[in-house]
Amino acid sequence: MATHTADTHQEAVETVRDLMKGIDIAMLTTVTDEGLVSRPMKTQEVEFDGDLWFLTKKDTGKYEDLVSNPHVNVAFVGKSYLSVRGTAELIQSPAKIREYWNAAYEKFLETSSDDPNLILIKVKAETAEYWETGSMTKMVKRLFQKITGNGEKDSGLNETIELG
Amino acid sequence: MATHTADTHQEAVETVRDLMKGIDIAMLTTVTDEGLVSRPMKTQEVEFDGDLWFLTKKDTGKYEDLVSNPHVNVAFVGKSYLSVRGTAELIQSPAKIREYWNAAYEKFLETSSDDPNLILIKVKAETAEYWETGSMTKMVKRLFQKITGNGEKDSGLNETIELG
Repeated sequence: MATHTADTHQEAVETVRDLMKGIDIAMLTTVTDEGLVSRPMKTQEVEFDGDLWFLTKKDTGKYEDLVSNPHVNVAFVGKSYLSVRGTAELIQSPAKIREYWNAAYEKFLETSSDDPNLILIKVKAETAEYWETGSMTKMVKRLFQKITGNGEKDSGLNETIELG
Repeated sequence: MATHTADTHQEAVETVRDLMKGIDIAMLTTVTDEGLVSRPMKTQEVEFDGDLWFLTKKDTGKYEDLVSNPHVNVAFVGKSYLSVRGTAELIQSPAKIREYWNAAYEKFLETSSDDPNLILIKVKAETAEYWETGSMTKMVKRLFQKITGNGEKDSGLNETIELG
């Protein structure tokens, strides 16, 4: 049973990884006192393994948002629509920053990898849902779900991947 | 002064309208007990005037989410990235549904416009932020803000349009 769950989890991670492929920018939504805000974030080039990694600076609004409420959504819009629900952790690790750093961040964040103001946002993905579309006028909804003890399906209209 | 504010509001609405143009699907993020979820929604074909209108069914998760928490974010991903923070109202109006109805909804929602299960989601846009991008590797952040009594700029890194 444990192996079965692990396999399914691995399949879910791989499905999500495929859906993210080639999408350089994701929309990260956070909770503020006034409501929900989202902003484009450069996606990681390191392979997705269940956690999403973003880089930001400590003197930004999103850092403040995440300190007071770690619930986030990450949406990937490309050929498919992928929605990841998760919890964010703020991680200060110069070694990890160097691992994730690339030239694109230098432009986006207008700094270098040794900037002490840099911080990593690690989003532990809890569920992922996706919708596939052939054209913009016809959306095909598909469903996957990790087999768990209470792994009942939702409405059956779209698919939720349990990543937790 | 009133005229000035109205003009600026009108300009903000027009800017947002231009940014939305040609984007058929937006990501609507809502708050659930477990965290933040988003899903693709067919955008309206009627012109944006400060409110965003979506169509859904009452037997869906998003309807339940909105009943318990009306805070939403609507993200439009196209040539630019547009984030709209707002509050949702659920409106049951057969006349309004007929006004917004078109063939695309028939496919998405798998029903006809006289379905009593249909309901309108009206999102009162409170702020909008956008980021322009020439290519996926260079993001140019721009800032607009409605002139208000305390209309101070944020970080200056991106632009917020006050629509409230």
